[in-house]
Amino acid sequence: MTTAQALEWSAPGGSGVPADRLATLLGRDTLHPPLYASLALGVRALVADGRLPVGARLPAERDLAAALGVSRVTVSAAYRRLREDGWADARQGSGTWTRLPEASGVVAAWIPGAPRQGLLDLAHAAPSGPPEVADAYTAALAALPRYLPGHGYLPEGLPELRARVAERYTARGLPTTAEQVLVVPGASGGVTAAMRALCGAGDRVVVEHPGWPNALDVLAVLRARPVPVALDPGDTAAFVAGAHRAARQTAARAAYLVPDFSNPTGASLSAQDRERLVVSLQQQDVTVLADETMVDLALEGQRVPPPLAASGRPGAVVSIGSLSKSVWAGVRVGWMRAERPLLSRVAAAMSREHGAMPVLDQLAACALLDGLDAALVRRREQLREQRDVLVRALRTALPDWGVPVPDGGLALWCSLPPGTSSSVLADTCEPLGLRLASGSRFGTGHAFDDRLRLPFTQPPAVLRAAVDVLAAAAGASAGRAPARSPLVL
Amino acid sequence: MTTAQALEWSAPGGSGVPADRLATLLGRDTLHPPLYASLALGVRALVADGRLPVGARLPAERDLAAALGVSRVTVSAAYRRLREDGWADARQGSGTWTRLPEASGVVAAWIPGAPRQGLLDLAHAAPSGPPEVADAYTAALAALPRYLPGHGYLPEGLPELRARVAERYTARGLPTTAEQVLVVPGASGGVTAAMRALCGAGDRVVVEHPGWPNALDVLAVLRARPVPVALDPGDTAAFVAGAHRAARQTAARAAYLVPDFSNPTGASLSAQDRERLVVSLQQQDVTVLADETMVDLALEGQRVPPPLAASGRPGAVVSIGSLSKSVWAGVRVGWMRAERPLLSRVAAAMSREHGAMPVLDQLAACALLDGLDAALVRRREQLREQRDVLVRALRTALPDWGVPVPDGGLALWCSLPPGTSSSVLADTCEPLGLRLASGSRFGTGHAFDDRLRLPFTQPPAVLRAAVDVLAAAAGASAGRAPARSPLVL
Repeated sequence: MTTAQALEWSAPGGSGVPADRLATLLGRDTLHPPLYASLALGVRALVADGRLPVGARLPAERDLAAALGVSRVTVSAAYRRLREDGWADARQGSGTWTRLPEASGVVAAWIPGAPRQGLLDLAHAAPSGPPEVADAYTAALAALPRYLPGHGYLPEGLPELRARVAERYTARGLPTTAEQVLVVPGASGGVTAAMRALCGAGDRVVVEHPGWPNALDVLAVLRARPVPVALDPGDTAAFVAGAHRAARQTAARAAYLVPDFSNPTGASLSAQDRERLVVSLQQQDVTVLADETMVDLALEGQRVPPPLAASGRPGAVVSIGSLSKSVWAGVRVGWMRAERPLLSRVAAAMSREHGAMPVLDQLAACALLDGLDAALVRRREQLREQRDVLVRALRTALPDWGVPVPDGGLALWCSLPPGTSSSVLADTCEPLGLRLASGSRFGTGHAFDDRLRLPFTQPPAVLRAAVDVLAAAAGASAGRAPARSPLVL
Repeated sequence: MTTAQALEWSAPGGSGVPADRLATLLGRDTLHPPLYASLALGVRALVADGRLPVGARLPAERDLAAALGVSRVTVSAAYRRLREDGWADARQGSGTWTRLPEASGVVAAWIPGAPRQGLLDLAHAAPSGPPEVADAYTAALAALPRYLPGHGYLPEGLPELRARVAERYTARGLPTTAEQVLVVPGASGGVTAAMRALCGAGDRVVVEHPGWPNALDVLAVLRARPVPVALDPGDTAAFVAGAHRAARQTAARAAYLVPDFSNPTGASLSAQDRERLVVSLQQQDVTVLADETMVDLALEGQRVPPPLAASGRPGAVVSIGSLSKSVWAGVRVGWMRAERPLLSRVAAAMSREHGAMPVLDQLAACALLDGLDAALVRRREQLREQRDVLVRALRTALPDWGVPVPDGGLALWCSLPPGTSSSVLADTCEPLGLRLASGSRFGTGHAFDDRLRLPFTQPPAVLRAAVDVLAAAAGASAGRAPARSPLVL
């Protein structure tokens, strides 16, 4: 499945998932009695590991029955089972649509008292909230009365937050005024808004491969075309050369880059890489969208090179930042740094489509930025410890896995031994209480099913427990082929 | 200007505003010496009242000079003046783009100590924040530690907030489970997300006329076609009949309706209107998007009829609600009620494009909903008093204006006497310290320039001061024709 397909399959008036395509994904010869249960499990596995999108319309019962060579009663019973287990919805006259069950959702992983409390969530690379969050909101609450007399709409963000963000850029060697800063709903909201402003249908956009899945998804929504460039943490100069070539060959309009501790590889670009990359891309009129969400997560005390925007002409680089990874995603405050004409356009579009940002979270973000450097000392220490726990546990329990140690970021990008599929592994682990994102989520096409991203954002005990499940599941699922037999569970 | 044009004019690679079109908007014969200053004022007036969108690219200097029959030096000087005053941005090689000046922005209207503190803002219909907001955030802060151990992503919203919203629907006669509720970033975010899920390019969407400008803007972004149906508060049965006919004639896919105290007219649909409208639209397979943002703002103690969704089959009506008008827009929490397949699709798209909603605001929303009925007593009392102050002041100072008294909502929808243009009036008032939204913002084409929406969301003293400015400006601007001579200032 490509992300473009995924979106077509879930479009309102769209055709849904073609029966033939679903039959191929399921593997035609893998159904076993009872057929309906086997079929339901197969669909569920495809939804769980992302090969079928959430919200996609499944084929009509008769069509899927024909494509699989089973009776319509079998398909009907499978769909009913999926609905009963919360993996599908039905609406009269409108068909059957994929979904995720409530109880096994993300929520269950961390809300005390929610069902399936024991689920270990290693699908998300996002840390827990530090005590500074509550302190920051307490400070924000004290400042709130100043804002209550107004109507609460601040289309470009709170002036004091914009000023603080500008100061941080300036301190990093990139002179910035508050006017160049727009407050956005987290990095993902900022990336979406920037991509909407920068590119449209058919435009080529250079992306890291592997890279952040949401960026690929947003490009698919815009019907832009990702141009994947291989990114190997051990040879970033090759990435720079590859991006240069790819931009030239495709006349790319934009590039989406994570220069610091890229997700999932942990790769960082050197100062020289950055200079070369930006100069090359701006010569070709490629606007760079630099996602700096990870910039504060250097784990070895090393100094991070200057921002990409420091190497380019004004307007060559749009920078996105956020507190979601360095502090907590539950705050949802991010920012965009760009030159005014573009920033005005993005601000107008965001105000039209989403109103403004909540006032209190912006006040809290001010307090969090004021105390960020102190908080980061503890955050990095915690992440370093957790990274090392996870690395040791994996090397002990799964000695045939490749476990490189990144010098920053939030996750390991592991290589699985020959014959092990990360989508099969994810599917095997889910009923054992461990949620994973398969490696293929981070690439286009079918790439990276032999890789697995393991975040070290959870406490050591959770990480050790997760490795225990992984070791048990790896033994059980090794040698089972991916994609052609997702029914194996 | 149509909203579709507006968006084309501000598209990244688009052609910008055609020189001929801008010349027509300015009025070719209205420039007076010094020409450059007169031209700059004209463009500024078009931006201020919304006929030129913020973020639009202005014509190349030579093209506009030719279209206006002036020298290029004049246009160049006018553009420079616009940039100096903050009404335009320039970027080398990319042209000149419209913007709003920082100091006269919305922020200035209400942040103590900000520049132009004296600006009266009657362009926004949004009330100040009541003391309950601070109390709610205090309660939320006490609940926050339960959530800090998690990663803070809740794609569909906080379970306890969804449960509370469901309870309120159920109490209004519309049985609802938490599973049917999605938390969204305010009503505008919810309307945008629902429209994206329901309709695409070329789809016809029935809208009230006049109606909420943002809804028209979002339809333009999606390249959907609004089908305006005249809405007269005194004859809503005619609106119901008109919507029925319009849906049939255009094979509309959806309808966007504000059933309670519609913005700007204050019109409400009776129980019988609602029943007829929903039955008629669902027979024609038109999905209704019901924006219930105003539902809690009945000002005469009257009972509001049941929700539109109570009259339709499951799935016939998608309902949107928010705390922005009944409590405070600075909280930015809204919700959507729909059947599961659609809700799953919307949730997946929102999570892909914007992440999740901030946790603390959702906790505060829980507290605000718990105390909403008590807070609404005070909110309604305050709005009633302010409405009556504004009505009295207008009838005294401007006896030739039509000032109908709505029985709910946040604004008056005034009729101006013959020869008075609300866009000219808005432009005249801005330098006098009063910001207005011209009546034409609430319609398609050039409709409603003889109308003016005046919100009564500010304290009595502000409303009286605003009427003083209006009376002075109305005397100064009466008899000046709109559109053909926006240069009069």
